Amino acid sequence: MQTSRSKPCSCPSFKLREVASMYFTMIAVFLVILVVALQGSVPRGSDFPYKVPLDPQGLLELSWNVSYPEQAVHFQLLVRDLQFGLLFGMSDRGEFENADLAVLWSDGRNSYFGDAWSDAKGQLHMDSQQDYQLLGARRAPEGLYLLFRRAFSTCDPKDYLIEDGTVHLIYGILEKPVHSLQAINISAIHRGLQRVQLLKPNITVPELPSDIKTMEITAPDVVIPSQETTYWCYMAELAEGFPKHHIIMYEPVITAGNEALVHHMEVFQCAAKFDSFPHYNGPCDSKMKPDRLNYCRHVLAAWAMGAQAFYYPEEAGLAFGGPGSSRYLRLEIHYHNPLVFKGRRDSSGIRLYYTATLRRYDAGIMELGLVYTPVMAIPPGEDAFLLTGYCTDKCTQLALPAAGIRIFASQLHTHLAGRKVVTVLSRDGRERQVVNADGHYSPHFQEIRMLKEVVAVFPGDELITTCTYNTEDRSRATVGGFGILEEMCVNYVHYYPQTQLELCKSAVDPGYLHRYFNLVNRFNDEEVCTCPQVSVPQQFFSVPWNTFNRDVLKSLYGFAPISMHCNKSSAVRFPGDWEKQPLPTITERLREPVPRCPPTPGPRPAAPVPLNLGELRRD
Amino acid sequence: MQTSRSKPCSCPSFKLREVASMYFTMIAVFLVILVVALQGSVPRGSDFPYKVPLDPQGLLELSWNVSYPEQAVHFQLLVRDLQFGLLFGMSDRGEFENADLAVLWSDGRNSYFGDAWSDAKGQLHMDSQQDYQLLGARRAPEGLYLLFRRAFSTCDPKDYLIEDGTVHLIYGILEKPVHSLQAINISAIHRGLQRVQLLKPNITVPELPSDIKTMEITAPDVVIPSQETTYWCYMAELAEGFPKHHIIMYEPVITAGNEALVHHMEVFQCAAKFDSFPHYNGPCDSKMKPDRLNYCRHVLAAWAMGAQAFYYPEEAGLAFGGPGSSRYLRLEIHYHNPLVFKGRRDSSGIRLYYTATLRRYDAGIMELGLVYTPVMAIPPGEDAFLLTGYCTDKCTQLALPAAGIRIFASQLHTHLAGRKVVTVLSRDGRERQVVNADGHYSPHFQEIRMLKEVVAVFPGDELITTCTYNTEDRSRATVGGFGILEEMCVNYVHYYPQTQLELCKSAVDPGYLHRYFNLVNRFNDEEVCTCPQVSVPQQFFSVPWNTFNRDVLKSLYGFAPISMHCNKSSAVRFPGDWEKQPLPTITERLREPVPRCPPTPGPRPAAPVPLNLGELRRD
Repeated sequence: MQTSRSKPCSCPSFKLREVASMYFTMIAVFLVILVVALQGSVPRGSDFPYKVPLDPQGLLELSWNVSYPEQAVHFQLLVRDLQFGLLFGMSDRGEFENADLAVLWSDGRNSYFGDAWSDAKGQLHMDSQQDYQLLGARRAPEGLYLLFRRAFSTCDPKDYLIEDGTVHLIYGILEKPVHSLQAINISAIHRGLQRVQLLKPNITVPELPSDIKTMEITAPDVVIPSQETTYWCYMAELAEGFPKHHIIMYEPVITAGNEALVHHMEVFQCAAKFDSFPHYNGPCDSKMKPDRLNYCRHVLAAWAMGAQAFYYPEEAGLAFGGPGSSRYLRLEIHYHNPLVFKGRRDSSGIRLYYTATLRRYDAGIMELGLVYTPVMAIPPGEDAFLLTGYCTDKCTQLALPAAGIRIFASQLHTHLAGRKVVTVLSRDGRERQVVNADGHYSPHFQEIRMLKEVVAVFPGDELITTCTYNTEDRSRATVGGFGILEEMCVNYVHYYPQTQLELCKSAVDPGYLHRYFNLVNRFNDEEVCTCPQVSVPQQFFSVPWNTFNRDVLKSLYGFAPISMHCNKSSAVRFPGDWEKQPLPTITERLREPVPRCPPTPGPRPAAPVPLNLGELRRD
Repeated sequence: MQTSRSKPCSCPSFKLREVASMYFTMIAVFLVILVVALQGSVPRGSDFPYKVPLDPQGLLELSWNVSYPEQAVHFQLLVRDLQFGLLFGMSDRGEFENADLAVLWSDGRNSYFGDAWSDAKGQLHMDSQQDYQLLGARRAPEGLYLLFRRAFSTCDPKDYLIEDGTVHLIYGILEKPVHSLQAINISAIHRGLQRVQLLKPNITVPELPSDIKTMEITAPDVVIPSQETTYWCYMAELAEGFPKHHIIMYEPVITAGNEALVHHMEVFQCAAKFDSFPHYNGPCDSKMKPDRLNYCRHVLAAWAMGAQAFYYPEEAGLAFGGPGSSRYLRLEIHYHNPLVFKGRRDSSGIRLYYTATLRRYDAGIMELGLVYTPVMAIPPGEDAFLLTGYCTDKCTQLALPAAGIRIFASQLHTHLAGRKVVTVLSRDGRERQVVNADGHYSPHFQEIRMLKEVVAVFPGDELITTCTYNTEDRSRATVGGFGILEEMCVNYVHYYPQTQLELCKSAVDPGYLHRYFNLVNRFNDEEVCTCPQVSVPQQFFSVPWNTFNRDVLKSLYGFAPISMHCNKSSAVRFPGDWEKQPLPTITERLREPVPRCPPTPGPRPAAPVPLNLGELRRD
């Protein structure tokens, strides 16, 4: 279980205070010799609401809290089997080069803690400005607890800037005595990465009604396959005649011991147009899986590692049950088992909290971004190619109520080449607000995220979603589509009150793309087959990707009119003329936020801090 | 006369020390109440070698020196007819909005000096960081002297960054009592701008030989026309049989009192192919001017306001006289007479210092940049459009001696839309050195500038010249060419030893440009005449300038092969294949220099400094 909030669940929680009181008699080894800068910066109440295992064995367990007034994160790292130290840090995408690291190292007699960084070759260096502030260290039977603090922004160019969205945490375990930081060969150590949303939004949890009921959609004692990646599918169903309810909260149910294996889970509702769905319990990619399960795609709940319980806003709930909705649910669990453990049994899943006392509004989900079509493509060998999908003023004017809608959560989605995603709200040609942004987006970490503040969208507003792709490892163009090697650019926004608008997405006008292929054909000396009788992907695959053809494709996407999908469901458009629509014009862009460098409370050490952890030996 | 160096000319110089000793008995009004931060930062020797009038009446006269060790400029501003203060400062292109200003103001009783800035509307604000440091103020019979200091870079975002190249100085005269800085209405005051090269290179002046001779090419008592702008042409000639000499230095000769009117002067040698040239003395744009004067274009000497004497390096001199060179010289003087003075007589010109003892090397001039051809064009309405001309490795390989050449001076040239010019030396695909750069280039201020350091160019090197243009005020495309509303992108580099290579320039391949017009024709819905039977300028004028056509033109210039002009003279190419040459590839760019913010010597005042100048009254 992930959450440590006491209400409404009462799962075993893991608070520093309790641990401290349990073991406070075992003083000898608990010595904290140096506690630096305690004035007000050790979290009061010592509450670390967020927790994630860093490694698949669960040797390192990170808990943290976020102080927005202080613009800082407090970390508590539990090291279960301390040998000669560890590395913990952050980097752009989880690489060990150009990383920002806190390092605890020991030569067997003396231990040190310091802020370090790795260069482009992975060589470690002590940081001239020490920004990981050690707040305490203490031994307990289960391991060593390290407490430290880090400001979101330090303005030290060697430090990682902690932003909203995904943060790639990295760790390394030092299994031999280390005589200096420089002596650590970062490529030879036991190491790994874990993705989390470090800056969780600071949201007040709404009170739950007294008639709340729970329902667990969990795997029926599955034996986790002994392979790195498994998507497990399990079909559940609601009771016959189950009336309309509102889901107002859900949380993960994780089988104890499997915290590091259960990567993410989703509960989908099946399509109402089919009366029944086959029962199935097995891998999602099995040949035995009935095809009809592909019609179970309406998300009811989604959880990913590091996430807590998901609460709907007080005024809204997600409708399920009742006429016009399917009784059938599909649970999908992504097991991540890189150490290929065998025979692990699992009954994890999601616990839905729902009520028959319907809230004022039904919540809805709307798809923003790009239509799944090959006309939107990325040339090969690009390090950061942008594609943009539009939800135009014309569509919101037609489809949204005068009082607008409120977006409260968002789930970003691309396939494997996606590196960043951002949706911006624009009104009267001026960018007003970021709806959701992830500058370190990973397709392997697609959470539903509560927004820091609810975004109001009114008729006439524009929602512009831009995805950044990296295709440096590809030799041919990546086209839009459903395939894992094709791409998507989507933001599923969760909002209320529900409207008929399910999909507000765009793609370049195919006629203009046709002109592009003609142009490529005529401009380049090579004879290339970009003739119209060939499919769009085939035409893209035959483009010779020189700088001109790349530049002109970018120019085309920034200029050509769009085909708008302003749809009630994925196939039914709102009435109107949606072809060859002009691109929204932006006259005023949002400014990039300038990182603030808050003064750190108390003096910062200029050098690594010695720690008395006793003599460390190899076990 | 501009120069204050005592050797070899002995013109009246204007040193602070002498002025001080002349008037040191007139103590009463000379009181300097507050001299701030005198420790070591007042220039020793009090020498201000550079001098320029700021306004056309000569009411404000600026002298300065440059300390490269301190990374600072010391200014001495003479205010001849002080009323209630003045503004002096710098801005990107001489505008009074977003300017960095030192202000001296008086309410009639009390006077203040402070560092201020103007916002985008021209409203003045006191700067929170005071970076114009007042070093002294003193009254003399000729006016008030203000001494102050400014670091090149202050890292205050409200301050101007003093860089190499042109600096637009601005001034304003306060003719009424001013009760606060905020009360100054900057648009209502007497104001203007002056362009100078503030950061003069720190070059050791070579010794001149004993057999040095001088020759003055000066206007014969011309009556300066009572109009704002006049280009005056005067033909001079060398004695029959004048043998080959080396010009090793030249300096301006300015008629006393006309310092603010003589804007720039050049001496050209005529083409040797004509035996004689008509005598002429009159405006260059007169219908009476003989056409043959257009064949007098080989620059022998050039001076512009604020420039000092020009010295050739010790090993080189500019050949003139002797067989194969014309005896005829053309002097061109640009008179800038915005106040339309009438009847001013002028005998200004240039004094050449030459020797019959030829130096080791003849100096030469080479043209880098773009060929004068309409195929290189700038769309209308661009705020910063870049065009690049190449001198390729293939050409330097063929034309330069194995020991290379040394570039010691450079004159940048564009027509009216030019805003920046830079030439970079690249070797093996890696940018190595900036040859000359002007980020605040003005077509109205085209000096020959000595380089801070001599640049060695070897066979196989590439010289890449990029010009930035602004066409926001134009409604149709600006094409390359000789006309004043057409454009050029040229760097005339002065170097030794002279080679046969006179011109190393490029332009886009015309066949690729033709494909561009075809593409525009086919891509855009409008029927535009970009048919080949029409001239290239006509084709450019008919392009509908949407973002796509602009972007694609940029992409074309960055991609298409070039036609190289690797010429012995403007019409004779070196042998070889110069058409459809590949663009040089650059694998490593020079880094933008990061401005250093040197600690200022002594404390800086946080607020404006009060000055006792006595009561100021309107005259």
